[in-house]
Amino acid sequence: MAAVKVYGPTLSTAVSRVLACLIEKDVQFEVIPVDMSKGEHKRPEFLSLQPFGQVPVFQDGNISLFESRAICRYVCEKYAERGNKGLYGTDPLAKASIDQWVEAEGQSFNPPSSALVFQLAFAPRMKLKQDQGVIRQNEEKLAKVLDVYEKRLSQTRFLAGDDFSLADLSHLPNAHYLVTGTDRAPLFTQRDNVSRWWNDISTRQSWNEVLHLHKTAY
Amino acid sequence: MAAVKVYGPTLSTAVSRVLACLIEKDVQFEVIPVDMSKGEHKRPEFLSLQPFGQVPVFQDGNISLFESRAICRYVCEKYAERGNKGLYGTDPLAKASIDQWVEAEGQSFNPPSSALVFQLAFAPRMKLKQDQGVIRQNEEKLAKVLDVYEKRLSQTRFLAGDDFSLADLSHLPNAHYLVTGTDRAPLFTQRDNVSRWWNDISTRQSWNEVLHLHKTAY
Ligand SMILES: N[C@@H](CCC(=O)N[C@@H](CS)C(=O)NCC(=O)O)C(=O)O
Ligand SMILES: N[C@@H](CCC(=O)N[C@@H](CS)C(=O)NCC(=O)O)C(=O)O
Repeated sequence: MAAVKVYGPTLSTAVSRVLACLIEKDVQFEVIPVDMSKGEHKRPEFLSLQPFGQVPVFQDGNISLFESRAICRYVCEKYAERGNKGLYGTDPLAKASIDQWVEAEGQSFNPPSSALVFQLAFAPRMKLKQDQGVIRQNEEKLAKVLDVYEKRLSQTRFLAGDDFSLADLSHLPNAHYLVTGTDRAPLFTQRDNVSRWWNDISTRQSWNEVLHLHKTAY
Repeated sequence: MAAVKVYGPTLSTAVSRVLACLIEKDVQFEVIPVDMSKGEHKRPEFLSLQPFGQVPVFQDGNISLFESRAICRYVCEKYAERGNKGLYGTDPLAKASIDQWVEAEGQSFNPPSSALVFQLAFAPRMKLKQDQGVIRQNEEKLAKVLDVYEKRLSQTRFLAGDDFSLADLSHLPNAHYLVTGTDRAPLFTQRDNVSRWWNDISTRQSWNEVLHLHKTAY
C-alpha cells in the first residue's frame, strides 16, 4: 500500500483531525508541508486542489479530497478492514449514530470552539487584537453545547455509544487547544462526564502520536 | 414499509432538506408538527429526542436520529435501492465527492446563508431588528463561497459531478429563501453557472413537492 498524502501543517485542527483518523486506521501517510504564513494555501496550485484555499487536502492514488470530516469518512470506508475497525461503526445503526455526532461536532461544537481557539490561542501569538464580544458570545454557545454533552455522556461512555468513534475523535483538535492552550480548560474539566470523556479520548495513543507530529511541525 | 416520521415544521430549512431527500428516494413519510412558536422544541419530551432542541428529528422503526445531513446520509444508505439510486453515488469515488460537497455546504455555504435567511427573511416577519453588520459580513462570506461554486460549476454540471446529488439537494432550502424571500437573488442569478445550476435544481419535481408542503404548513 503506497502512503496516502495529507497537505497542510500538522498544527492545523482540520489537518490533525485527518491525521488522528489515519493513525487509528493504521493507514500510512506522508505529510506535505503547506506554508500558510507565506500564503501557499491561496496560490493557484493549491486552489486547484482545495478551491476554498484551506487545509487539509488528502490524496489516495488518483482520488483527491478536501473537507476533513468527509476525508475521515472516506478513510474509514476505504480502509474498513484496517486498524480500529469500529471507528465508524460495524453496522448501519452504529454508523448512523456516529454520523449524527460527527455532524453535531461540525455544526454545533466546532463553530464556537474554533472561534475561541482562534481568539484565545492564536490571536495573541499572531499579535492580533482579541475581540471580547466574540469571545463572550462563543463561550456562552460552547457552554450550552457542553451541557448537552454532559448529559449525553452521563448515559453513554462515548458520544455515539459505548465505544470510541470518529465522533469523539473529531472533537480532539479544538478541545486540545482549548484545554491546553487557553485558560478555558474549566469548560471541560468542571463538567464531570465531559472531563472523564476528555481524559479518555485525549490519552489515546493515536492522539499522542498526532501531538508528537505537532512538535516536529512544519 | 411503514412510513418514517419527520418531526418539525416543513418551513424549516433543516426539515425541508430531509423532506427533499425522502421524496427523491421515494420513501413514504409522515410529518409530525412541532409548534416552535410555542417553544415545543425546548420541552423535555422533544429534548429527549433532540438534545439541542432543534428540528428535525427523524424516526424509522426503532431508530431515532437528528442532524439533517446525517439523516439524509442514513436514508440514502438504508433505501439505496429505492427512488433516485444515484443520490449518494453508486461507487466509493462518487460517494466521496458527494460527501465532500455536502460538507462544503454544511461548513461553508450554510453558515453565511442561514445567517442571511434569518436576518433578511425571518427577522422582519418576527418584528426583530436586523443587524446590518451581520448582514454585511455574511453577504461577503457567501459571495466568496459562490465564487468558488461558479468556477466549479463551469467544469461540472452539478457540484459533485455530472449528476444531481445529495450535495446539490442540501443547498436547496437556504438558497430557496435567499432567492425567493429576500432581495439578494442576484447573488445567485448574476453568476452564470450558479444561475444555471439553481434553475436546474430548484425546478426538480422533488423540491416542488417540498414547496407544496410548505403551503400546507403547520
Ligand atoms: N471545513 C474545513 C475547514 C478547514 C479549515 O478551516 N482549515 C483552516 C486551518 S485549521 C484553514 O485552512 N484556514 C485558512 C483559511 O481559511 O484561509 C475542513 O474541515 O477541512
Ligand atoms: N444542524 C442541525 C440544525 C437544525 C436547526 O438549526 N434547526 C432550526 C430550524 S431550521 C431550529 O430548530 N432552530 C431552533 C433553535 O436552534 O433553537 C440540522 O441540520 O439538523
